[in-house]
Amino acid sequence: MPTSTKPPSGTRDFLPEDVRRREHVIGVVRRVYERYGFEPLETPAFENIETLLGKYGEEGNKLIFKILRRGEHESTGEADLALRYDLTVPLARVVAQYQNELPKFFKRYQVQPVWRADRPAKGRFREFYQCDIDSIGSTSPVVEAEQLAAVSEVLTTLGFRDFKVRLNHRQELPKLLAQYFAIDEASKQAEALITLDKLDKIGADGVAEELEKRQLTTRAQALVGLTEAVSHPMPDSLARMIELGQNTPAEGRVVFDAFLARGLSYYTGAIMEISVPDLAGSLGGGGRYDNLVGMFLGRDVPACGFSLGLERIIVVMTERGMFPPHVASSHADAMVTIWNDDSRADALALAGELRRGGLRVDVYPEADKLGKQVKYASGRNVPFVTICGDDEKASGTVSVKDMRTGEQQTTPRAETASFIRSRLGQRENL
Amino acid sequence: MPTSTKPPSGTRDFLPEDVRRREHVIGVVRRVYERYGFEPLETPAFENIETLLGKYGEEGNKLIFKILRRGEHESTGEADLALRYDLTVPLARVVAQYQNELPKFFKRYQVQPVWRADRPAKGRFREFYQCDIDSIGSTSPVVEAEQLAAVSEVLTTLGFRDFKVRLNHRQELPKLLAQYFAIDEASKQAEALITLDKLDKIGADGVAEELEKRQLTTRAQALVGLTEAVSHPMPDSLARMIELGQNTPAEGRVVFDAFLARGLSYYTGAIMEISVPDLAGSLGGGGRYDNLVGMFLGRDVPACGFSLGLERIIVVMTERGMFPPHVASSHADAMVTIWNDDSRADALALAGELRRGGLRVDVYPEADKLGKQVKYASGRNVPFVTICGDDEKASGTVSVKDMRTGEQQTTPRAETASFIRSRLGQRENL
Repeated sequence: MPTSTKPPSGTRDFLPEDVRRREHVIGVVRRVYERYGFEPLETPAFENIETLLGKYGEEGNKLIFKILRRGEHESTGEADLALRYDLTVPLARVVAQYQNELPKFFKRYQVQPVWRADRPAKGRFREFYQCDIDSIGSTSPVVEAEQLAAVSEVLTTLGFRDFKVRLNHRQELPKLLAQYFAIDEASKQAEALITLDKLDKIGADGVAEELEKRQLTTRAQALVGLTEAVSHPMPDSLARMIELGQNTPAEGRVVFDAFLARGLSYYTGAIMEISVPDLAGSLGGGGRYDNLVGMFLGRDVPACGFSLGLERIIVVMTERGMFPPHVASSHADAMVTIWNDDSRADALALAGELRRGGLRVDVYPEADKLGKQVKYASGRNVPFVTICGDDEKASGTVSVKDMRTGEQQTTPRAETASFIRSRLGQRENL
Repeated sequence: MPTSTKPPSGTRDFLPEDVRRREHVIGVVRRVYERYGFEPLETPAFENIETLLGKYGEEGNKLIFKILRRGEHESTGEADLALRYDLTVPLARVVAQYQNELPKFFKRYQVQPVWRADRPAKGRFREFYQCDIDSIGSTSPVVEAEQLAAVSEVLTTLGFRDFKVRLNHRQELPKLLAQYFAIDEASKQAEALITLDKLDKIGADGVAEELEKRQLTTRAQALVGLTEAVSHPMPDSLARMIELGQNTPAEGRVVFDAFLARGLSYYTGAIMEISVPDLAGSLGGGGRYDNLVGMFLGRDVPACGFSLGLERIIVVMTERGMFPPHVASSHADAMVTIWNDDSRADALALAGELRRGGLRVDVYPEADKLGKQVKYASGRNVPFVTICGDDEKASGTVSVKDMRTGEQQTTPRAETASFIRSRLGQRENL
């Protein structure tokens, strides 16, 4: 055993039950996004390193996984590729590259992993999935309203009843900092936003302390600001978005939050973040970024996007027991036992008949003692076991054992699949 | 425009139509594998570098993408992580790591990308998907027979009618080389296998020439060997697998091929490869590898697997026009137009009603001239457009334009979704 068998630090292996939970959420995300007219896009796991560097700020640069050049260049220790850090910058590259093939209003969704060399912590991973929607090509508030409706519908479909979407406008933040905090200089404002973004985590006192420590304003002024700015009026543009969301799944979900800052520097308009009471961070967030595509294309293209964090959604759903029971069901509806070595071919044929009948079927691979085979099925929660010995074979029947009741019944072989299907009841199969 | 907007060399962006084709194939693969009782597994994109090094031979080592250490260690130019090179070695690690949680017979499928720093060429990529099934824990030929049935069913379901699975046994190859080619020494045999594996590509003459050039045998002896070994008898163990596959989807597909070699060195028993007449390489391949898990676990565990290559399946399906028409359908069943700025909220509400009625619905984001909006829908092949002006609003109706016929009809608003659904006809929606 020369090497560790653990996955690398900050990453996870997903065993079957984990994958099923993830696929359940991803399936809902995809179906809802498709229903809203978003189209799927996938980009490579790595990008040319210049594509990513300088897009995520200084802190972001440090968290990018860099890939060593290959062959004779390997010994230089230089990197020419880097792992995807988010799904937005690759999208901006794609919009620039395929500008003549894409529709005027390009609405895409993308569900793929991203990688960040963050220090691993509870709920913070180095490999995690983002579920993004972005709309390219229009400055209309219909775009924001539709995205708010789409992410609200995703969460509602998953069973969330208590989420809120906080909404703010990037361009209100400088005004707010000047008016209530007496922070006027642009560079100081940018620094102050980083602190303000932590309000959720460190509270008003923490923010005030940090603003003073960074010499951006006094503690007293900051505390006044934090109190007074609460009643800062919502700008008309945001009121319009909320109004457009009446009679959509976003109705009643969206609230104005004058303090919402969002870390990423590329936002230019509305910014949004989703939260639930029992999670410190957010389930997702987004906003309008009308200049990012221009960094690749040379001319600006309006854009707005929203990203849901798969890992956090799964954390909350797991803690709250929100997964429907069928997601964690057994790997098979039935297991075919093997009577003896001579009947192995017939066991495989029977399995094929049951599969054609719409069942997920496992075959015990060896002609072990029958009791051992049945015990194995029981340990794996397989609800039905078939037995086909010499008698059954001679009479064209199959014995079916219902593992939940222990009851064993004999059916004509041709009716075995429908016999089991009817007893599986409401459980949907493919 | 400072940086190139192309994806990195050897990788691809998948635009919506590409993703739909890929998802169609992956969907079939997953459904069939589930029907055979295989369970999903996912592993991280990168592994600790020691996990991968030394598992794929000297050539393989060179093709592994290595990730630079981070932070203060970045300047050393050392790598501590590496991108997944196949799905088999990560599985072996997983089996060792979770031995107490996994069932005695662990049957898993895994559909994920792998990365190899191969020189890019037509049909050869640096990022490509593998669709693997592996069965851990049994030496029974039922395992091979079930895998042959499963991959045959995948291909049949996708519409392949002319594939063959070539079957050989790894331990027959040394005998064959000694008996017909007069190559007795183990190291020479290993070298000869690399040449023999190219028989498909370079033909008998090419193989004979290369064997002589490598001083493994004479050209004349090689040509005799290639002729005579054709009638080398199939070993009983393989005959049994074919027999077990009667009455399964593998029936009539599997043929013995005494020359099938398979590159990877970890195989210990049956080896298999799928081919179609119009593709030089294979659609997939696999075999038994009873010792690989032992490299991680310290004790051997029997294992057998099969890998389907997604990219090649898609290449052949595209060339042959095998994708069903609905895979390339429009991104939406209907597009809601916007009458004027005041009716935007109502347009979003109507879109919501149609979505609840089971339709995929796009909303034109701006109150452009109606003709422009309809033209946009036409350009995007959206089959239905809704118009809801002042008259319709007053009378509680919606005008629906069928873009395929140009016909426009007015329906009660509450019946609009079912009106469109019935005219979409057979096209299945979610």
